[in-house]
Amino acid sequence: MQSDIEIAQAAEVWPIDDIAAKVGLQKHEVEPYGRDKAKINIDPTVARKTALGKLILVTSINPTPAGEGKSTVTVGLSDALALAGKNVMIALREPSLGPVMGMKGGATGGGYSQVVPMADINLHFTGDFHALTSAHNTLAAVIDNSIYQGNPLNIDPRRMIWKRALDVNDRALRHTVIGLGGPTSGVPREDGFDITVASELMAILTLSHDLMDLKARIEKIVIGYTYDREPVTVKELGVAGALTTLLKDAIKPNLVQTLAHTPTLIHGGPFANIAQGTNSIRATKTALQLADYVVTEAGFGADLGGEKFLDFKVPLLGKTPDAIVIVATVRALKMHGGKAKDDLKTPDVEALKRGLANLGQHLNAMMRYGVPVVVAVNRFVTDTPEEIETVAAYAREHGAEAYLANVWEQGGAGAPELAQAVIEAVERPSVFKPLYDFEDEAMDKLNKIVTTIYGGAGVELSDKAAKQLKQFAKYGWDKLPIIMAKTQYSLSDDAKKLGAPKDFKIHVREFVPKLGAGFLVAMTGSILTMPGLPKHPAAYDIDIDENGHITGLF
Amino acid sequence: MQSDIEIAQAAEVWPIDDIAAKVGLQKHEVEPYGRDKAKINIDPTVARKTALGKLILVTSINPTPAGEGKSTVTVGLSDALALAGKNVMIALREPSLGPVMGMKGGATGGGYSQVVPMADINLHFTGDFHALTSAHNTLAAVIDNSIYQGNPLNIDPRRMIWKRALDVNDRALRHTVIGLGGPTSGVPREDGFDITVASELMAILTLSHDLMDLKARIEKIVIGYTYDREPVTVKELGVAGALTTLLKDAIKPNLVQTLAHTPTLIHGGPFANIAQGTNSIRATKTALQLADYVVTEAGFGADLGGEKFLDFKVPLLGKTPDAIVIVATVRALKMHGGKAKDDLKTPDVEALKRGLANLGQHLNAMMRYGVPVVVAVNRFVTDTPEEIETVAAYAREHGAEAYLANVWEQGGAGAPELAQAVIEAVERPSVFKPLYDFEDEAMDKLNKIVTTIYGGAGVELSDKAAKQLKQFAKYGWDKLPIIMAKTQYSLSDDAKKLGAPKDFKIHVREFVPKLGAGFLVAMTGSILTMPGLPKHPAAYDIDIDENGHITGLF
Repeated sequence: MQSDIEIAQAAEVWPIDDIAAKVGLQKHEVEPYGRDKAKINIDPTVARKTALGKLILVTSINPTPAGEGKSTVTVGLSDALALAGKNVMIALREPSLGPVMGMKGGATGGGYSQVVPMADINLHFTGDFHALTSAHNTLAAVIDNSIYQGNPLNIDPRRMIWKRALDVNDRALRHTVIGLGGPTSGVPREDGFDITVASELMAILTLSHDLMDLKARIEKIVIGYTYDREPVTVKELGVAGALTTLLKDAIKPNLVQTLAHTPTLIHGGPFANIAQGTNSIRATKTALQLADYVVTEAGFGADLGGEKFLDFKVPLLGKTPDAIVIVATVRALKMHGGKAKDDLKTPDVEALKRGLANLGQHLNAMMRYGVPVVVAVNRFVTDTPEEIETVAAYAREHGAEAYLANVWEQGGAGAPELAQAVIEAVERPSVFKPLYDFEDEAMDKLNKIVTTIYGGAGVELSDKAAKQLKQFAKYGWDKLPIIMAKTQYSLSDDAKKLGAPKDFKIHVREFVPKLGAGFLVAMTGSILTMPGLPKHPAAYDIDIDENGHITGLF
Repeated sequence: MQSDIEIAQAAEVWPIDDIAAKVGLQKHEVEPYGRDKAKINIDPTVARKTALGKLILVTSINPTPAGEGKSTVTVGLSDALALAGKNVMIALREPSLGPVMGMKGGATGGGYSQVVPMADINLHFTGDFHALTSAHNTLAAVIDNSIYQGNPLNIDPRRMIWKRALDVNDRALRHTVIGLGGPTSGVPREDGFDITVASELMAILTLSHDLMDLKARIEKIVIGYTYDREPVTVKELGVAGALTTLLKDAIKPNLVQTLAHTPTLIHGGPFANIAQGTNSIRATKTALQLADYVVTEAGFGADLGGEKFLDFKVPLLGKTPDAIVIVATVRALKMHGGKAKDDLKTPDVEALKRGLANLGQHLNAMMRYGVPVVVAVNRFVTDTPEEIETVAAYAREHGAEAYLANVWEQGGAGAPELAQAVIEAVERPSVFKPLYDFEDEAMDKLNKIVTTIYGGAGVELSDKAAKQLKQFAKYGWDKLPIIMAKTQYSLSDDAKKLGAPKDFKIHVREFVPKLGAGFLVAMTGSILTMPGLPKHPAAYDIDIDENGHITGLF
């Protein structure tokens, strides 16, 4: 069996201009990065065909260490739609470099359902994340310089929100003290680093329609508070223009291709807990202008990325989805049913049946939005026919059809029925019903998310969070959309509660205002915004030879 | 008068494939980044024409705040050579992003002697520095992770050499404490950040002939010491392959063009104090294969970049220079003669005559290498004919001819005589005489540099530095080439001593071993490896409009 990187490096990759031509892009709209990557620069508000493409959201059950293969299914489904003669584009998130050196697989699919050039996409790609790192840390340097140069904005160094950022898994940078070394080296204060994808600039970049929208959002970022507890914004610091200049290319979506040469936009990678968790609005809009079918995914499970896509991204996008695909695997469902990770290869219909409650909750949650929902069972070689039929029967009982996706092994040829089901689903009449209005009170929004999407009993605020809501009302921030930062492993805020827990409360520890992105993050449990490396990091195994041939990348 | 960015943005920029074709590059050797930048991937050890190009080194007097315009002259001279019908390429260093947001002008020339696309080159360019930042901090994370995960290499966290790096001017990061926040967030220790161009990886990248040379050098980096005071290398950490993989594209030189469409390789930007201060060996070798005339520059004055180019880069390059151009300005020489910066516009032949001693020392130093030396007087509008003639007469008395470079105002058309003089100089027979042998003792190397190049009386070691030399002999490091880290403003190690000071000693405070780069840095005075921002950073003035038009970049 070949590894992902072996398959990817052996692939025949078409010149990117040929991929661009498949969706009607002209040469002046394509900025090449090498011969197999490009940035696309079109105005996605200008119609290029009679109707926007059909929008298909791929989401999943709660992820487990067993792996769900959501990206793999997204790529395989798209290639299957292309095989069925459809004009299709994919809109994915960019992988973060930090985890690539740590332990996580990339976001470029797997097996014969991959996006290429796989190594480049997982390493520096077209430099978008590096531009974000630069902009993020330029702002941090300007803030500390302002404090050092007489502090004209009266910034309280003990009440900072803006930290520094690096696209590295580096736990030692989580909590730091900076400004040491005497009077010429700044003002000492507590600080810390987030991984770049956790930067508010990432959320902003992927929400911005154009450069001026980007600049306006950057101006609104609150970086901390004055000694008088008034918020301090980037507008007051006067560097929104410089930061926007640093992001002038990063705002343009990146074009690559699948192994089957399906045009794929990969752009932006905000987390699905502390941010909206989907690729950029600009990339999605660009794809909708260029293709008849646009397949996109949202991070983590339907409770996190799915909910945020539907309640937060859709209103900004101005286009509702035409179908939702929920990815599940027999292996992961068995884990949700209590089976140990090391024991997943043995058939166990009883564990599977117990775990199906997790799929059931996500199915109910997604179906309430009024959009057709299809279940995709991402096939592993150890799955038995009885196990697969058990999932299909469960889905049918809950009002949806389940189809096999054998795309890791066969590419698009492994999912003809799934593709056909999606083609039929997007033609079904549907009326999109959002979960909440932006004007709802914060507590109403929170409770709707917890009860309807998570199947929980409601929300509890810490004293600090309750106090913050009152304070935010004073600043006019209390009606912002809520972005729930919760563990991805459970529908509850306890990562160990698999399956479909009941009667639980979600505990909001604090809110983090993201004024540029335009949302309030509700922090539950301990969400790490700077990962660490494992005992044996992937970096130990990555190597390159004299011909540039890479090994050990997953 | 138009600003540099206005001139650059109004320029007619040719498609990069056309620029590549001018020097015989084929499509498969060119990896485009946008339509006006590309990476060049050829084997520079394979002959493409009957002889290597002529190599012309541009260096200067000690820089002053008045500005010398070394890059501007490099570009203007090259365009003048092209106007004279020569097949010419430029090999320059890449600008660092940190200073662009601070106060320094870019390294892309000025006026009508510029390299374009100016904004892109000064911002992210093709991502080389971002790749270095990633590799540098990946290594740092791996080191701290190794300490955290049981410290199998017995690394002493109090004796670390490897710091972290960012391409930002951020004084608050010079001295930090990391690993705070309890047992799950690493091991607390003192740390700090250098600006990315100061990373040893920058020196290594620009010295490496190919990927395997790069990997072998990375393996040799000493990151710190064990509790038993034994050096710890990257090879022991096992991530040389991963770091080389992160630099697989950064090792390829970048092709751009001047306003007059002269092909220009811009690649790497090591400092000329703590590193070798010139563009990459690979870029220079590539240019020598492609063009008949290769014009390159070295950082700071002839005492720093010039000396390092001749004594350290030339042996590794395997090609000696055919001519050396020393850039001077009337304004800077008047400052060296004691005239105040605010008073430079008024004619003052007496101050000029006093300051000419600075030029004299550099002339003597460069002429001793046995290569023809030409003086270029970079013209400012306030220069009087008498002042210019005074410089020319001084140069003649010291055995060199001086020529006017009016290239800021006129581009290549402003330096026909300088170009003709260089064309004649490179044909003169010459025998290159290096200053020292690599096998010389460290003290001999140091004394030769100080007495012959700086015109000083010798070198003094601190107790620490003397102790280090003994320790390094034990590790076999004592015969490495010496890289002198000294202020660029004076021939001495006191930035305030302008002109040509005499009878001074150079005080070496400590040595910094750079085993991957293969040199010992001799630290004199206080060399900052992380700059700060000024009270009014350039970032305050940089802006971009809805069409991507940039203002305020210099």
